[in-house]
Amino acid sequence: MSRRTISHEEGAIYEFTPELEPIATVESGEKLTIDTRDSLDGAVQSDADVIEAVPDEVNAATGPIEVAGAEPGDVLRVDIEDIRLTEEHGRVISIEGFGLLAGHDGIEAPKTRMTPIEDGTLSFEGIDADIPVDPLIGTIGVATESESHTTLVPHNHGGNLDTTDLAAGNTVYLPVFQEGAMLAMGDCKAAMADGEMCGTGAEIGTDIDITVEVLNEPETELERPLIETPDAWKPLANAETLEEACELANRDAIELLSAEHDISTTDAYLFSSLVGGLEISQVVDPLVTVRNSIPKEYLSSPF
Amino acid sequence: MSRRTISHEEGAIYEFTPELEPIATVESGEKLTIDTRDSLDGAVQSDADVIEAVPDEVNAATGPIEVAGAEPGDVLRVDIEDIRLTEEHGRVISIEGFGLLAGHDGIEAPKTRMTPIEDGTLSFEGIDADIPVDPLIGTIGVATESESHTTLVPHNHGGNLDTTDLAAGNTVYLPVFQEGAMLAMGDCKAAMADGEMCGTGAEIGTDIDITVEVLNEPETELERPLIETPDAWKPLANAETLEEACELANRDAIELLSAEHDISTTDAYLFSSLVGGLEISQVVDPLVTVRNSIPKEYLSSPF
Repeated sequence: MSRRTISHEEGAIYEFTPELEPIATVESGEKLTIDTRDSLDGAVQSDADVIEAVPDEVNAATGPIEVAGAEPGDVLRVDIEDIRLTEEHGRVISIEGFGLLAGHDGIEAPKTRMTPIEDGTLSFEGIDADIPVDPLIGTIGVATESESHTTLVPHNHGGNLDTTDLAAGNTVYLPVFQEGAMLAMGDCKAAMADGEMCGTGAEIGTDIDITVEVLNEPETELERPLIETPDAWKPLANAETLEEACELANRDAIELLSAEHDISTTDAYLFSSLVGGLEISQVVDPLVTVRNSIPKEYLSSPF
Repeated sequence: MSRRTISHEEGAIYEFTPELEPIATVESGEKLTIDTRDSLDGAVQSDADVIEAVPDEVNAATGPIEVAGAEPGDVLRVDIEDIRLTEEHGRVISIEGFGLLAGHDGIEAPKTRMTPIEDGTLSFEGIDADIPVDPLIGTIGVATESESHTTLVPHNHGGNLDTTDLAAGNTVYLPVFQEGAMLAMGDCKAAMADGEMCGTGAEIGTDIDITVEVLNEPETELERPLIETPDAWKPLANAETLEEACELANRDAIELLSAEHDISTTDAYLFSSLVGGLEISQVVDPLVTVRNSIPKEYLSSPF
């Protein structure tokens, strides 16, 4: 099957809602290239371009893409095959009132640093080292169940997950809340630390190669996103505090362990305290994101 | 230099205070083997042995060991060379009111699961997989500056850090607050997840091979513990909430980056958002622990 391209120029959203109008309809199993623009819609092209406040419209997500046959209660499987940068620089910025150290002594906002990219590495002025390009998707999600969330917010539908594992070679499973799923994605980074402390990674436009597949009537219903890497399964959870997000992600991991091994919730909890563990995705968005990694030695596909 | 053994039978503490009486005095550069007992002092030898409440005395730390020449303001470098298990099983437990999911539906406490160990792997009843033994030190610290902390608490002196990186092949740097440093350690685990969700790993007695070295008048003063792995430098921070611990660990990472590259605090903050990142050590102790990993490509020894 040839690979169809869907560009942000055809349509992009700044809010995930229950009722989204698709810009394209694709089949389950179809291979796609998703063309995304940078999270700041091109507003930052030099260190002199600073962002005074979090824009009302940020993290444009190319889509929505209707996936034929997806029904509420299904799972949408998205294999991330490649993320190619379409600009020759990223940008990392601080915004007043936003970020882990907002308001701390010595932290200036707004501030912009461009990160030029050459031969697969980023550079950052003042750091005499090449930073490997390691692209990831910041925002990926589907139409919500009932509420609406701007593309600044991560929640059960996905959205602004800002998770380093949303990278080539990995798969993300999203719950389907509405007919057609209505997938959208954007807000890519050329590189990002776990935590995304200042509030951004190296924001950049990309072409993302994916394959989408609908899992009809899945053996396991998903309440929240789940990531598969070559080595691990990682339930993701979003909450007001990191503590609450840890609880949700751990509960999801325990449920998977308990179901697979037919052990009690308590035994799965004790076992979860021995292998893999809690990982920070981001600590800066309106809800924060945590994942609980369980190595594949102990967990097979729940679907 | 031959390796001297210091055993928990010679002395162990349950509280780090400013004034600790040493059970041994060693030289800077000396190689030691530290014999530790399990965190529950042998009280749990089968699944039938449960712990009703967090004991007043828990996490016995073998020591204190006076390191000759260590003065307040110095740094104590501890190379962790090997951690050998001295029991044929660990134990992972829940205790009422303790742990990430304490009080949640379906989580029983108290509960004990023994984890028998054979041929370098743990087993856990109901899970049909070998769990690799991957030992770590749960509690390691020095005499405090002015306050006192039981060995259940992690703080600037170290203490109950419960961090997977406190493992063979890595080095921990501790601030010296009192003459002789007064190093003590124990509370080892045969395996533990990042997060230590249920409140323990696979608790076990060990022999720990270390080399201690005093860094007199170090180029960089340490306020909190710092870990060096083969690939990264990781400042550790402890706080009431994960958010606060993230802030402290990120500030420490930024300070190291800023000093090494002679860049502004803001630039170091933006750069810290691109590489390595925040990692969860534990989410269950009276203070929680987070580290901020910076790959060695971008940071050399601060000492």
